[in-house]
Amino acid sequence: MDERSALAMLSTSLSAAGDDAAVVDDLAITTDMLHERSDFPAGTTRETAGWRAVGASLSDLAAMGADATCAVAVYAAPAFEEAALAAFVRGASEVCELVDAEYVGGDLDHHSEFTTATTAVGHADEPIYRSGATPGEAVCVTGVLGRTAAALRRFAAGDADAGNELFRFTPRVAAGRALRDHASAMMDSSDGLARSLHQLAEASDCGFAVEWDRLPVHPAVDAVAESEADRRECAAHVGEDFELVFTTPDPAAAVAAVEATGTDATVIGEVTDDGVLAAGEPLPDRGYTHGETE
Amino acid sequence: MDERSALAMLSTSLSAAGDDAAVVDDLAITTDMLHERSDFPAGTTRETAGWRAVGASLSDLAAMGADATCAVAVYAAPAFEEAALAAFVRGASEVCELVDAEYVGGDLDHHSEFTTATTAVGHADEPIYRSGATPGEAVCVTGVLGRTAAALRRFAAGDADAGNELFRFTPRVAAGRALRDHASAMMDSSDGLARSLHQLAEASDCGFAVEWDRLPVHPAVDAVAESEADRRECAAHVGEDFELVFTTPDPAAAVAAVEATGTDATVIGEVTDDGVLAAGEPLPDRGYTHGETE
Repeated sequence: MDERSALAMLSTSLSAAGDDAAVVDDLAITTDMLHERSDFPAGTTRETAGWRAVGASLSDLAAMGADATCAVAVYAAPAFEEAALAAFVRGASEVCELVDAEYVGGDLDHHSEFTTATTAVGHADEPIYRSGATPGEAVCVTGVLGRTAAALRRFAAGDADAGNELFRFTPRVAAGRALRDHASAMMDSSDGLARSLHQLAEASDCGFAVEWDRLPVHPAVDAVAESEADRRECAAHVGEDFELVFTTPDPAAAVAAVEATGTDATVIGEVTDDGVLAAGEPLPDRGYTHGETE
Repeated sequence: MDERSALAMLSTSLSAAGDDAAVVDDLAITTDMLHERSDFPAGTTRETAGWRAVGASLSDLAAMGADATCAVAVYAAPAFEEAALAAFVRGASEVCELVDAEYVGGDLDHHSEFTTATTAVGHADEPIYRSGATPGEAVCVTGVLGRTAAALRRFAAGDADAGNELFRFTPRVAAGRALRDHASAMMDSSDGLARSLHQLAEASDCGFAVEWDRLPVHPAVDAVAESEADRRECAAHVGEDFELVFTTPDPAAAVAAVEATGTDATVIGEVTDDGVLAAGEPLPDRGYTHGETE
């Protein structure tokens, strides 16, 4: 059983699973585990790891239109080195501060490989789910795509400073909150734009038609992309950019609401009846799956 | 740096850390990671593992006097076998049902060793901390001690059925809630009674004097203990019983409040100025530490 089948199984037995975060009563909650080998390229500082791991969970709250109350992390490593642990806590605290959440520590455990399990909790009075998109609406993204793809190239080239800089992203909690009155469906782009569109399509029983030349691409991608095809790969498939992908019946109002929080938003196409197309061609449901790529 | 030093470091940099659960606004949150090798003896079913891992987090909420809203878990294993995953979810869901919480799934990850990271969240309108005990008060425990020690002996003897039965405990959420108006300090006994008393003493700047013959010991301990010393080891040091250890100025009222929830509570001694004594002798600060003992 691969990861997606296993998650699907969890989702059928547990009603709240299957969205970016679970919603129980007035709370949204989400948890993730990250590993040194698969998630933190050589050169990633422990501060960046703390930032990114906690940030990924905060992004899941953002994707529900929830606020972010607090986050915890389990820090598991072969040894507890004070400088590394302090750096992790600093990164985790910094990304929480960016979204008005509190990092409240967590648990420690011995592990042969550096591993962290993070959980974030917030209030979700009006959660936005993946289901809810209607044909004719616009589909949009916040910020720019390809940031993580560019970071991975930088790490691979030995430029760890640039990689770490790109790896520390701002979770879109404020934008997600601003979209509560505007978005009909939403998720974050942690698995890449292409896979996100497929998942929204499945949850909303719709399709999408997006245009390549509308995608907002991070300038760092242009510096590393070897071809137009490579550029598209970076923007649509590598993923882990933690931007919001959302649909809306009123794109002008939705974009303005996001922009009021200091983040860009871009209309990249429209909701259709079925199929996920980019410039009229099928956009494959391909992205980051643990253990398959990287 | 050992685990306790590292946790102490986290605690000084993060105000909310250091109790059983962190409290932020009206929420209590706690997270833990458990591993097959250190936490689940050979013979532990995946259902018991799910129950116990999620139960340990629910117990941390109980120790704050919080209710339990929901729990999540990361399930990390070398492969996702449907039967094992379904059993884990079943155990996790069952223990949540016992305390009126909802198990809402979580994340999956590949890992060479079966590992689970669990997080529980609840509302804590009047949290009970470890600090707050005053000399002259009574110190009490819920339920009985030594359940896990007996389970470990059963697993070691190849009697996995008895071990699994003993390993599935009821988190004391109802008792913890009932103690909100009665307990001055509280924590759970996950590190053993002895270490819990030392931690309460440190947090409350007090001491304890308990009596061996007052300790409520699980009948399964009597069936396996080789001597009176061994019986005391099982009851006070092995730990992971997930009972509540609390202090109160009015033990009769506190015991009655716990008993009204269907759980026993027993006065085991009193709060003193300093020192942790059992029958007048120092009770060593020794218990379960990951990697040191079972």
